[in-house]
Amino acid sequence: MTTIGFIGTGNLGLPIARNLLAAGHKLKIYNRTDGKAQSLIDLGAIRVAKAVETAEPGQIVFTVLSDDAVLEELTLKDEEFARRLGKDGIHVSISTISPDTARRIANQHGQFGASYVASPVFARPEAAAARKGSVCISGPASAKDRVRPLLAQSIGDAIFDFGEETGAANVVKLAGNFMIGAAIEAMAEAFTFAEKNGVTRQAIAGMLTQTLFACPIYQNYSKMIAADQYDQAVGFTMPLGLKDVNLVLQTANGSRQPMPFANIVHDRLLAGLAKNRHAWDWTGLARGVSEDAGL
Amino acid sequence: MTTIGFIGTGNLGLPIARNLLAAGHKLKIYNRTDGKAQSLIDLGAIRVAKAVETAEPGQIVFTVLSDDAVLEELTLKDEEFARRLGKDGIHVSISTISPDTARRIANQHGQFGASYVASPVFARPEAAAARKGSVCISGPASAKDRVRPLLAQSIGDAIFDFGEETGAANVVKLAGNFMIGAAIEAMAEAFTFAEKNGVTRQAIAGMLTQTLFACPIYQNYSKMIAADQYDQAVGFTMPLGLKDVNLVLQTANGSRQPMPFANIVHDRLLAGLAKNRHAWDWTGLARGVSEDAGL
Amino acid sequence: MTTIGFIGTGNLGLPIARNLLAAGHKLKIYNRTDGKAQSLIDLGAIRVAKAVETAEPGQIVFTVLSDDAVLEELTLKDEEFARRLGKDGIHVSISTISPDTARRIANQHGQFGASYVASPVFARPEAAAARKGSVCISGPASAKDRVRPLLAQSIGDAIFDFGEETGAANVVKLAGNFMIGAAIEAMAEAFTFAEKNGVTRQAIAGMLTQTLFACPIYQNYSKMIAADQYDQAVGFTMPLGLKDVNLVLQTANGSRQPMPFANIVHDRLLAGLAKNRHAWDWTGLARGVSEDAGL
Amino acid sequence: MTTIGFIGTGNLGLPIARNLLAAGHKLKIYNRTDGKAQSLIDLGAIRVAKAVETAEPGQIVFTVLSDDAVLEELTLKDEEFARRLGKDGIHVSISTISPDTARRIANQHGQFGASYVASPVFARPEAAAARKGSVCISGPASAKDRVRPLLAQSIGDAIFDFGEETGAANVVKLAGNFMIGAAIEAMAEAFTFAEKNGVTRQAIAGMLTQTLFACPIYQNYSKMIAADQYDQAVGFTMPLGLKDVNLVLQTANGSRQPMPFANIVHDRLLAGLAKNRHAWDWTGLARGVSEDAGL
Repeated sequence: MTTIGFIGTGNLGLPIARNLLAAGHKLKIYNRTDGKAQSLIDLGAIRVAKAVETAEPGQIVFTVLSDDAVLEELTLKDEEFARRLGKDGIHVSISTISPDTARRIANQHGQFGASYVASPVFARPEAAAARKGSVCISGPASAKDRVRPLLAQSIGDAIFDFGEETGAANVVKLAGNFMIGAAIEAMAEAFTFAEKNGVTRQAIAGMLTQTLFACPIYQNYSKMIAADQYDQAVGFTMPLGLKDVNLVLQTANGSRQPMPFANIVHDRLLAGLAKNRHAWDWTGLARGVSEDAGL
Repeated sequence: MTTIGFIGTGNLGLPIARNLLAAGHKLKIYNRTDGKAQSLIDLGAIRVAKAVETAEPGQIVFTVLSDDAVLEELTLKDEEFARRLGKDGIHVSISTISPDTARRIANQHGQFGASYVASPVFARPEAAAARKGSVCISGPASAKDRVRPLLAQSIGDAIFDFGEETGAANVVKLAGNFMIGAAIEAMAEAFTFAEKNGVTRQAIAGMLTQTLFACPIYQNYSKMIAADQYDQAVGFTMPLGLKDVNLVLQTANGSRQPMPFANIVHDRLLAGLAKNRHAWDWTGLARGVSEDAGL
Repeated sequence: MTTIGFIGTGNLGLPIARNLLAAGHKLKIYNRTDGKAQSLIDLGAIRVAKAVETAEPGQIVFTVLSDDAVLEELTLKDEEFARRLGKDGIHVSISTISPDTARRIANQHGQFGASYVASPVFARPEAAAARKGSVCISGPASAKDRVRPLLAQSIGDAIFDFGEETGAANVVKLAGNFMIGAAIEAMAEAFTFAEKNGVTRQAIAGMLTQTLFACPIYQNYSKMIAADQYDQAVGFTMPLGLKDVNLVLQTANGSRQPMPFANIVHDRLLAGLAKNRHAWDWTGLARGVSEDAGL
Repeated sequence: MTTIGFIGTGNLGLPIARNLLAAGHKLKIYNRTDGKAQSLIDLGAIRVAKAVETAEPGQIVFTVLSDDAVLEELTLKDEEFARRLGKDGIHVSISTISPDTARRIANQHGQFGASYVASPVFARPEAAAARKGSVCISGPASAKDRVRPLLAQSIGDAIFDFGEETGAANVVKLAGNFMIGAAIEAMAEAFTFAEKNGVTRQAIAGMLTQTLFACPIYQNYSKMIAADQYDQAVGFTMPLGLKDVNLVLQTANGSRQPMPFANIVHDRLLAGLAKNRHAWDWTGLARGVSEDAGL
């Protein structure tokens, strides 16, 4: 049993923190806004006034933050966080950020003897709560060994190790999110094709997700796309989707790779936001497909 | 036990015909070229000299032909095939053709009292042999009732009924093939993204096809794309892939629907053929992705 | 002075026929519908009851028809038109059709000793009236020599000869129409970019069409795109635009060439028709750009 | 006659500086590397050791720098440049940068009483030398009044004023560069279409740039695209082209506008760089079109 720092108790951070408490760990938590932290305090978490206070020498801090900028603010802007972690401290970064940002943070931490373990997660909040998420990790081997049991207790035991290069897990996470976006567009085109040619969206969705595409992404997302309705059961919003696809395209630009499918997914999300669909689930990129078909 | 006509004993037709023989049916077969028919004759099939001779009054004929043109040649060019089938005759059309062609053939057959059952199949040849294919059917209910047991014996019992409108099953088949093509491009972009950023194609393929994308299409096709090699174990060639995507785009054009992902899949196949990759598996559209990235 | 046959007195055919009459030629005209022919009869044209009656042995017939199908109906469906033209007869085909159709018609005509001169025209009707159109021609040299003065009198003296291969002029015409469509989309993206970032569409259009893009296509089309209004002064409708882009894409498909810009122009037109914009000028493909930007 | 500061005497800066000297102005110049500055010193320019030393109270400084980062280094990183310019000083920024960067610099300058005039230029170096460039300007009216004669003397008298909002001229410049890139891709697709269908690239280029597209961009760029050769007469390289298209796409992303043509131009440049074509003229994006067609 250890005391773990935990920054970011939003939609995804909350169930992870709760699982850590349930596993018997002590948590020092910080969240920018107050609301969501209360339920954790009720479960025994200690709240600190500043984010850096979650870090203690040689200990572990989880961060579950919304984007590169927030994480850079915490870590790169001044060195206090890294200094407090110090020798043998570990920063477990759950956030979906760019591999480059991860590398820059890891370098800075290293100057203080601390480690950075990239640990992005594929999980909607309810999957994390049920410890059925998949975790991708990369970073120093010894740090990963200490972190792995905590990830299993709090997110799930499907932990995939992509080696010691810091950014590797982020690369996989971004590529995976791109593939989800591409599956959404592909279903939207196919179901709209069916509808325009006399087959119901539900009928084609049912057949294909029981056979060729009988896997979580297609089975989960096909329901909203078949209904062509995206403002209920919102798990991951359009702006978050755009943020991730932008990270994909920036990384691809830097490594000199055209990604035409990613461009299309990007443009669907951008058009959706231009039409003020900020509160829709990102699956709503599919609406552009039916609109272009006059539906 | 009935005598069934069977036209087209190519890669996919052969295992279907063999399964029908194994189930105890008599077959009258026809194939344009001689070679492949011999193994069926050895199993008891009777060979006829002309395609139309497979049809007998009130009986059933399977066709497994390569494209719309070949099927039109058999059926629409003169009426002998439909006349021979006559009242209560059934044409079970396994071919992947356009819904419009299917409707025109069904109309013509109807003038002679015969039925057309659209029965396109999702199955690589080895899956059909093992009766693990999925069949989409549409057409008159009574005709489908007579045909269903034969499809189960010869292709598999995953039979999905899309109603009485002739072209419906073809619509689903085309949409499904499009979705496979889109999955190939999506994997190619994602795996290349990984490779360009320090993660092996095999590592990302392994993780994603065990979790989010744990379904037949991703598991089967990811292997070739991870290896980035497409001229071995060729199941469905580039020209066949292009033929099907062209049918998708023509149908979408006719029903007024833009399909940007289908355009990209189309262009990859077209570029592949411009580079003389006719003998590659259609998964080889993925090679364009790595080439554009300088790999 | 000769008697010239003339089939198709629609928007573009009318001013061409009028110019031929004004140059002193006798015309035998045919149009599917009556209305538009009357003004030519008033000017001395003779009207015939059937299209084929415009053709006389060794004489010249102009056709200005809407698409491949109408021209095939006239020429390929039965041989009477070609037979009547006979030895030294010339068919001057102004229509924008596929190079392949042109070749098939030329072959058939050749069997009767008649020539086919592909003569597609770049001209809105008012430009043709003022004899300021550009004509692309291809076909047998001697036939072109006889036809050239007539084209100069009726369309303009900017006549560009692309050699003896029948389809060459059609290839150029299709490529040119594609380039116009691409210029429309490019302006639409640029002007919308300006508008979204604080510069009026008129301001940017004015600057660019006086400098870098000071040429007819940009100067003419930029006005409608700057106003973002497309249902006034309709010269060439969305369905005609789609027909031509479909010919481009079919020809490119046959010759194994991906054309990503053509795909996008195609999809804009298709989406416009899905939204019932049949009566808009084809410049209206630009509306999709502003809609996707939430304007 | 005034003393003008001048930073950046590269390909484009050199002829502009030379024209200013020829018009009788005194120049204080700075360039990161030595070579190119010498010819200006021979003409009477004074060289300063540090970039900020070009600025004097109330005077004018031209900057012709390669990208946002270099300009930010000069201006935003510390305040010395703005402080030296001081009250009534004017910074004439010729560089193609993002509108946002321009706005941030203008704000900073304003705190010291200095003005920023965005003055991006459409001109290849030889056009600037001949004072045949086009200049887009935006910024405070009084500052523009002082700057306009200098721009006319050094670049050309085609000066287009886009008002007082700082970034407006940059918006137009980016949109214009995008339109050039789109014209390159459109010509490449059209000329390749011609070549694949039996018409030479030169023949179609000649016809279209004499008629529909008789304007500088099409006439200049068509020559390289017709020859399909891009490593001679390099005026603006592939990496510079990519930099500008990236600015377009970032700006469009920020203002919520999909730009599918810009995506394609971007991806062609990116693929070109992935294939090590850094030294090619950016017209070389056209090579991707012929390669995809198997040429």
